[in-house]
Amino acid sequence: MPTVPPAPTAADAVDVTALLERGRTLSTPVLRTAVGRLAPPMDTVASYHFGWIDAAGNPAEGDGGKAVRPALAVLSAEVTGAAPETGIPGAVAVELVHNFSLLHDDLMDGDEQRRHRDTVWKVHGPAQAILVGDALMALANELLLELGTVEAGRATRRLTTATRALIDGQAQDISYENRDRVSVEECLEMEGNKTGALLACASSIGAVLGGADDATADALESYGYHLGLAFQAVDDLLGIWGDPVSTGKQTWSDLRQRKKSLPVVAALAAGGPASAKLGEILAADARSSDFASFSEEEFAARAALIEQAGGREWTAEEARRQHRIALDALDTVSMPERVREQFVALADFVVVRKR
Amino acid sequence: MPTVPPAPTAADAVDVTALLERGRTLSTPVLRTAVGRLAPPMDTVASYHFGWIDAAGNPAEGDGGKAVRPALAVLSAEVTGAAPETGIPGAVAVELVHNFSLLHDDLMDGDEQRRHRDTVWKVHGPAQAILVGDALMALANELLLELGTVEAGRATRRLTTATRALIDGQAQDISYENRDRVSVEECLEMEGNKTGALLACASSIGAVLGGADDATADALESYGYHLGLAFQAVDDLLGIWGDPVSTGKQTWSDLRQRKKSLPVVAALAAGGPASAKLGEILAADARSSDFASFSEEEFAARAALIEQAGGREWTAEEARRQHRIALDALDTVSMPERVREQFVALADFVVVRKR
Repeated sequence: MPTVPPAPTAADAVDVTALLERGRTLSTPVLRTAVGRLAPPMDTVASYHFGWIDAAGNPAEGDGGKAVRPALAVLSAEVTGAAPETGIPGAVAVELVHNFSLLHDDLMDGDEQRRHRDTVWKVHGPAQAILVGDALMALANELLLELGTVEAGRATRRLTTATRALIDGQAQDISYENRDRVSVEECLEMEGNKTGALLACASSIGAVLGGADDATADALESYGYHLGLAFQAVDDLLGIWGDPVSTGKQTWSDLRQRKKSLPVVAALAAGGPASAKLGEILAADARSSDFASFSEEEFAARAALIEQAGGREWTAEEARRQHRIALDALDTVSMPERVREQFVALADFVVVRKR
Repeated sequence: MPTVPPAPTAADAVDVTALLERGRTLSTPVLRTAVGRLAPPMDTVASYHFGWIDAAGNPAEGDGGKAVRPALAVLSAEVTGAAPETGIPGAVAVELVHNFSLLHDDLMDGDEQRRHRDTVWKVHGPAQAILVGDALMALANELLLELGTVEAGRATRRLTTATRALIDGQAQDISYENRDRVSVEECLEMEGNKTGALLACASSIGAVLGGADDATADALESYGYHLGLAFQAVDDLLGIWGDPVSTGKQTWSDLRQRKKSLPVVAALAAGGPASAKLGEILAADARSSDFASFSEEEFAARAALIEQAGGREWTAEEARRQHRIALDALDTVSMPERVREQFVALADFVVVRKR
């Protein structure tokens, strides 16, 4: 398993579960109220997407995900000495933008399942997936701007930049699907856009709302951006070698989707016999019409080749490297020691998680 | 033809063509630069949508539409005594939001043609239509917010409200398609969201950027909102009785699409024999499988029934009524007389246009 043990730090004393729970508890009621502003049937469709109701409209206890973003947004408010509550509108706006992108990406990618449930376009149709995604993006900006402060304007500008990066990343992801080869640099740029940019915004938006200057906000964004790249590297490891019981995905999930994730791209770029063999096999797979019926053993053989070519270890090292850059960025910001320890603990959590 | 001659006013002396041309000339270069910020291939797809290139990527001289919105945005800057140029970022942001909605609506509605050209989803696929629409919405907010002023924050907030209204209107439009009957009030609410809200924003955004207070901005929004409803009433008349040579659409265009537009809805609500007959025929049409092969005469008969039931005259009167409300709203705002005359002339233009 891709455990990447970080060096023991003071952050080990931080209760990450409680930190994540705080972000979730503070932001969810505000998020639900915001979503309640949507005109019918968009409110219902959005509530289904967030897991608050099932497809029949009955209340549900959805898997809200890890909630790293709200925890970061609330925590970042404390950098400036503001109350964690100052970060709530930022946490909610970031969650709205994140979910806008999930709704649209699932439709564009044809993904039928998310968090063990049918996706919105599958249940409510493509038009509702488009409409509700649009509405969530607009609602995110509305929520922030109606605060009416200079800080809210600055926060919204940063959120908009992150939103554009998310869209750029999805555009890259789609264009890479149609290509035989993707370089490691292209893959990292795409993952930086798809995952780094919004975690960057989450890590700084509370501070911006609390009145932090641009240098502080930029440094917190750098922490979040590299945390995002570490997060994504771990995700790419879990996408191949993750335990289906923990991840909720199929075995060899990313291989089944022929995803050009970091371990694959790094293995192909590594050179050597295993790398060359992998290249031949994946090129044949791309043309194969009975790929869908491949056996467990066939996927396992591909995973073994990726590992032999060094793709697994390269990606694990990349997660550690990005984790270090994130912590270095944190060192440039002055903040209460307790807040710093919590940022470090969240970074540690992201690289050792199993789902 | 649905001419709605307004009473002669001082505005008759205004050269509307020059006013529209000014808005277009000031905003188009900034719009093109903004679109150039999009990552490939989204910049190309957007350039195709705006008519600047053809499907093969060669430069084209597209029909940019009437450009009422940019003309209003630039003019509204002059309400406060600011230069028309002050309104340019607002004009561009409004155009970006308008085009975001066209890209997504064409896909949701399955419309294959816009302004005599294949729509983006038809040429570049649904994913690009979604992505580029998303990018244009985000870019609109980015452009305004990077001005970095308090006024820009207020303008963006109003734009976001208009964006949400656009989305609500499209949601209503889709839900009405599946219903047998739509009330006149529902139809007006939908058209207010789809057309009124963004014209409201266009009519006030330059003034907001020029430092106008909220009361002034609200009154200008009211002018634009009711102008939008007048515009839409005329559009609904042209959608049935418009000259195909002028409109660029098929004869009886809205009838062919079974659109529940104002003349239809008003005719159905009117009561009396023609109204009842129309109701029976349209109910049968809704169930008909060979509707697509209906003759010119069959559509002409439906149009005649709508007219007999009073739907045509009701809609023409509604256009005049909304035009009056728009001008009344204008009267509450203090502004240079020359600017007022131009607002009046644009309102007159909207209700007498033939396309």
